[in-house]
Amino acid sequence: MASNVSLRQHQSVSLSYGLAALNQGDRLVPWAFERRELRSDDIAVKIQFCGVCHSDLHAIRGSGSFPLVPGHEFVGEVTAIGAEVTKFCVGDAVAVGNIVDSCGKCPPCLNHEESYCREFPTTTYGGVDRIDSSITRGGYSNDYVVKTDFAYHLPAGLDPASVAPLMCAGITTWSPLRHWNIGTGKTIGIVGIGGLGHIAIKFAHALGAYVVVFTTSEQKLADALALGADEAILSTDADKMAAQKYRFDFILDTVSARHSLDPYLLALTLDGTFCCLGIPDRMDFTPVLLTMGRRRLTSSGSGGTVETQEMLDFCSKHNISADVEVIAAVDINAGFKRLEQGEVRYRLVIDMATLEAPAENAA
Amino acid sequence: MASNVSLRQHQSVSLSYGLAALNQGDRLVPWAFERRELRSDDIAVKIQFCGVCHSDLHAIRGSGSFPLVPGHEFVGEVTAIGAEVTKFCVGDAVAVGNIVDSCGKCPPCLNHEESYCREFPTTTYGGVDRIDSSITRGGYSNDYVVKTDFAYHLPAGLDPASVAPLMCAGITTWSPLRHWNIGTGKTIGIVGIGGLGHIAIKFAHALGAYVVVFTTSEQKLADALALGADEAILSTDADKMAAQKYRFDFILDTVSARHSLDPYLLALTLDGTFCCLGIPDRMDFTPVLLTMGRRRLTSSGSGGTVETQEMLDFCSKHNISADVEVIAAVDINAGFKRLEQGEVRYRLVIDMATLEAPAENAA
Repeated sequence: MASNVSLRQHQSVSLSYGLAALNQGDRLVPWAFERRELRSDDIAVKIQFCGVCHSDLHAIRGSGSFPLVPGHEFVGEVTAIGAEVTKFCVGDAVAVGNIVDSCGKCPPCLNHEESYCREFPTTTYGGVDRIDSSITRGGYSNDYVVKTDFAYHLPAGLDPASVAPLMCAGITTWSPLRHWNIGTGKTIGIVGIGGLGHIAIKFAHALGAYVVVFTTSEQKLADALALGADEAILSTDADKMAAQKYRFDFILDTVSARHSLDPYLLALTLDGTFCCLGIPDRMDFTPVLLTMGRRRLTSSGSGGTVETQEMLDFCSKHNISADVEVIAAVDINAGFKRLEQGEVRYRLVIDMATLEAPAENAA
Repeated sequence: MASNVSLRQHQSVSLSYGLAALNQGDRLVPWAFERRELRSDDIAVKIQFCGVCHSDLHAIRGSGSFPLVPGHEFVGEVTAIGAEVTKFCVGDAVAVGNIVDSCGKCPPCLNHEESYCREFPTTTYGGVDRIDSSITRGGYSNDYVVKTDFAYHLPAGLDPASVAPLMCAGITTWSPLRHWNIGTGKTIGIVGIGGLGHIAIKFAHALGAYVVVFTTSEQKLADALALGADEAILSTDADKMAAQKYRFDFILDTVSARHSLDPYLLALTLDGTFCCLGIPDRMDFTPVLLTMGRRRLTSSGSGGTVETQEMLDFCSKHNISADVEVIAAVDINAGFKRLEQGEVRYRLVIDMATLEAPAENAA
């Protein structure tokens, strides 16, 4: 393969392997590749667990650069540190999320909101390294090399596998909940109980809000309450939906499939906010519903380094992490199918120790 | 006509006449009708000038109740007062806007945000009176009967004809500018220079913001600067639009025709707000642009009684009113055509003294 011809010529470069889609839409297969050499402000990480995010599926089917190694929420152990690194020692347990660099100079970066970097942050996979222009390969792999600014100490007292999803699903819901000041005295809705939704319920409940969960699945109603919701509503029940009028200060929509936002906009009170994390191709709503009630439609993109640390501290203090199912590397393609069918409760995490180095890359 | 059979039988009821669309989509013709009798908290107003709003056109073409007398921004003189009225005397100059009643009990009403009444406010025309269930007839007429809570003293020092449009076009732009704290230190965009846009420019400038106007009309660029804009940009110039990236805290879109919001969303800075007053059938934008930059899409619906008074006081103090062209009643249909073609600078106002009482209603 063109991108691997130099594999054996640079033995000083770390030899890495992971699960890759060799071409757009492909099933994942074991694949060997190179990581960059350790820079002075980098750490090398042996990956233990990597979460499976819905956006990994999007990326595999997307029009990005292939081969593509997904994975942007993982935990592991530091195996090497750069010359100037003081934040970590070899052997430290670390966590890495969906961005690994940013320009560092624009107003959002200076305010530690690196996910809104005006030059676009470097994503953990499928991104372009800001120094050597190499393509980043994600955490469905044996190791990773990352700038220390974008690595975090594992929060104390939590199971590492269940921490991995906090680094994407967690921060992606934590950030808007904090930005919109969700807490005591607020009534909020959470739409969907999947990887994002189930953590959002835990966060919103721990932050003190009155939490109402909307789901299309009758089977998940009890789960919502168990996760900390005060109420769970079947969103296919038109009568119950109509009864929600003017109830909510804020609704966090975690559903990635296209669906009508109208019942939820009607459920917002005056000046209420609907935050859509799913990012469908198009948002289906009736514009006048924004006019009546001066409602706001917004979205949110993961989170910056300061709020990621804040989230991890909060999780440690409140004993919050994801509900995960650990799978072996060979089960990833079956896992994707279950993810698509909404059968995962609530986040798949790959045990990367189960991934064997490929003897040779497939042609 | 069925709705006028009792016209001559109730001589105690005020005999009124106006310009009406007898059926959906019709041209306006003179038409006689009844107003309700004066209640204890009402005033009767002889109408002098009534502004022509784009929504009048929408209403005529809409599926509401016909005959329909449009007009919801007018000024006139008090000709009678109810038994309990102390706010006005006969002879006072008054102004009335687009809502004339509300439930008075819901949270928005209690907060004097009557335009967001949860039971929907009574509109100045095409609304249903909350006491006798009669259909309200608008200000394209010789007189009006209105509850004093929804009538305002004409602001001192301003030409009455140019005040009329403040009551809809004015308050509809004033309310979001105030709600979103537009003032010194803010860079704001205003899209479109029509009835709403031209007043919004005056307000935003007087409030101390740095004002950038977007227009599709090269001819209106100079007008924008004359109205108080700091910059005027031709929105059809893709290069200039691309150069607006991250500039704006707030953009007020006053265009009622459907158009892509993407160039404007890209022009917003982190946490910027796009407020769409035009209310098209559908809003055309790329959802991920809300995600990148945590941008907010919102709208706004006219304003409440307290902020309407606040706006009138501000206009009086800053010598702000609409740029109007006064037309005779017989010219209304030609005026609608010019309005549709964007040829009005910037608000038509009907001189209601030119309207003669119809000898008999057309069959």
